[in-house]
Amino acid sequence: MSELKNDRFLRALARESVDVTPVWMMRQAGRYLPEYRATRAKAGDFMSLCMNTELACEVTLQPLDRYPIDAAILFSDILTIPDAMGLGLYFETGEGPRFKKSVNSVADMDALDVINPEADLGYVMDAVRMIRRELNGRVPLIGFSGSPWTLATYIVEGGSSKDYRKTKTFMYNEPEAFTRLLNKLADSVALYLNAQIKAGAQAVQIFDSWGGALSHQAYLDFSLAPMQRIVNQLITEHDGRKVPVIMFTKGGGQWLNAMADTGVQALGLDWTTDIGNARAQVGDRVALQGNMDPAILNAKPERIREEVGYILSRFGKGNGHVFNLGHGVTPEIDPDNVGAFFQAVHELSAEYHEN
Amino acid sequence: MSELKNDRFLRALARESVDVTPVWMMRQAGRYLPEYRATRAKAGDFMSLCMNTELACEVTLQPLDRYPIDAAILFSDILTIPDAMGLGLYFETGEGPRFKKSVNSVADMDALDVINPEADLGYVMDAVRMIRRELNGRVPLIGFSGSPWTLATYIVEGGSSKDYRKTKTFMYNEPEAFTRLLNKLADSVALYLNAQIKAGAQAVQIFDSWGGALSHQAYLDFSLAPMQRIVNQLITEHDGRKVPVIMFTKGGGQWLNAMADTGVQALGLDWTTDIGNARAQVGDRVALQGNMDPAILNAKPERIREEVGYILSRFGKGNGHVFNLGHGVTPEIDPDNVGAFFQAVHELSAEYHEN
Repeated sequence: MSELKNDRFLRALARESVDVTPVWMMRQAGRYLPEYRATRAKAGDFMSLCMNTELACEVTLQPLDRYPIDAAILFSDILTIPDAMGLGLYFETGEGPRFKKSVNSVADMDALDVINPEADLGYVMDAVRMIRRELNGRVPLIGFSGSPWTLATYIVEGGSSKDYRKTKTFMYNEPEAFTRLLNKLADSVALYLNAQIKAGAQAVQIFDSWGGALSHQAYLDFSLAPMQRIVNQLITEHDGRKVPVIMFTKGGGQWLNAMADTGVQALGLDWTTDIGNARAQVGDRVALQGNMDPAILNAKPERIREEVGYILSRFGKGNGHVFNLGHGVTPEIDPDNVGAFFQAVHELSAEYHEN
Repeated sequence: MSELKNDRFLRALARESVDVTPVWMMRQAGRYLPEYRATRAKAGDFMSLCMNTELACEVTLQPLDRYPIDAAILFSDILTIPDAMGLGLYFETGEGPRFKKSVNSVADMDALDVINPEADLGYVMDAVRMIRRELNGRVPLIGFSGSPWTLATYIVEGGSSKDYRKTKTFMYNEPEAFTRLLNKLADSVALYLNAQIKAGAQAVQIFDSWGGALSHQAYLDFSLAPMQRIVNQLITEHDGRKVPVIMFTKGGGQWLNAMADTGVQALGLDWTTDIGNARAQVGDRVALQGNMDPAILNAKPERIREEVGYILSRFGKGNGHVFNLGHGVTPEIDPDNVGAFFQAVHELSAEYHEN
């Protein structure tokens, strides 16, 4: 593997010194970019794009050619694991994800098996390998997976949901069976992330998109516990380098202490949490990633710049900050505003680091 | 006015001793009840039900005839104020609320005026007076309003929204103009709640349904500050009794300290916050209301009972707890499960009070 030319992102996750705060953006390869929309049109539907190694690689690299970004993230979907479990993921135009097979009983849940990533999700590892080759050491590559709780909501609901009613009913009425499902998902995620790491992912992020919908105790039992089970199984070093893990629970601002105790290297923060308060809570246990409100990208560039400066000032001096949005960039955003965001992070953060 | 026969709710808000923990349920007069659906069918659309004094009174009282509830809440909509501002509220079947007039510019915002509740919303005060008369002292009556931020999102978006994009763009680009709108809404809410109090509401709740969508600083500036402006203007005593204020920000678990400093008597908690942790944070400043996940009402009655017991144990012994859900009950819930919920609160809470 070629030498890494820009290791700010990995250094910040290890809470080592950097010249400027590294930055990437959730969903940076996405619909707000005209070049993405062009490639997507070539691929056909969304899953065809994910499964086409060359095109998945192409869209992964597109934002890096436009902006000074410090990390690439594998272009894929969080629902590849349930798809590999045989549930038949598909996307209807204008709708969210759907599954062909539904899971309506304890028997349906118990029939699902832990995946074999190289056999079942080889297209993802192919994309990781090609992206690493094409990146040629420009920046590190992030692999990722959905969290077990988040995957379970899609599996049980059969797609997106507003209130996770069916999933929560299972969870409350059949906690043992539901835990069996979560454990199989956790083991699958661990195998999947380890396969991504072996294929070349230099850091991994667990996306717990819907953990914030749970009560305090249910979060600990049904979202954090299976994520802990993943963390316990992950490769911690590959190819002579540590492989950091970022845990991101959207709406998880009340549980940062518990998350920091899992042994991950960093926590992702959504925009509702003050990053200065978060740092005071987690101390030296973990780095922090985040956390600008993605809606600010709709505002004037000078307002975006001001908000970047505010978040940098709230984190303050010292190591351990990876700048990001608090959630994914949305499709209607002007790419020039995204440029203003990336530029502001590097320009305004120098004063917070010793150079 | 007749003497209050059951004052548990008001005593708990004042952090005075009670025999059992009082309980009510957000949206207790609602679609899960067959008798509500029957009255609603008589009234026609939702706003016609709100505006019909007799029928609004009838649905307010329905849950009290079925369950041992310790407070009634005025049946109305949170969007009566924007409607009174001339925006033309209506509901389309199967859709959320909509406004006929849209607000697309600073000029549109500045053209809106503070309401005159007795002139513009007389139908609400008529309902309050009739409900008080019909209650005849059984339990106290709660009045309510949406928070300025929550009302502003509906006004600017023209209805419901997933990410409040238009509202946040205004907020970030035009903070002064947006603050003028919020202040007019705050003054309108204060006049509206004071009118409800004079008409007979014995406690009031501010519903900040969407404050949890804001960043930490934006919450303080654009949701909490206008709520503080309301609190500063509210009547604190009427008819020889204190009138407590309950402030409920859904998704506000990270801001309880700031909320407790506004001078309100109680905070509403959604289900994501551990009520024991919340009590430790707010101490003796405020009572707490909440906070069972409404989704548990889909589970088995014994599971509902167990969760009620768990929340009571987390609050622990002592005064200052009003039991509630963490958000409104949903239409598909079995009324018998709601019965199990109310019964469990009274039965299981006795041991936490000195009798």
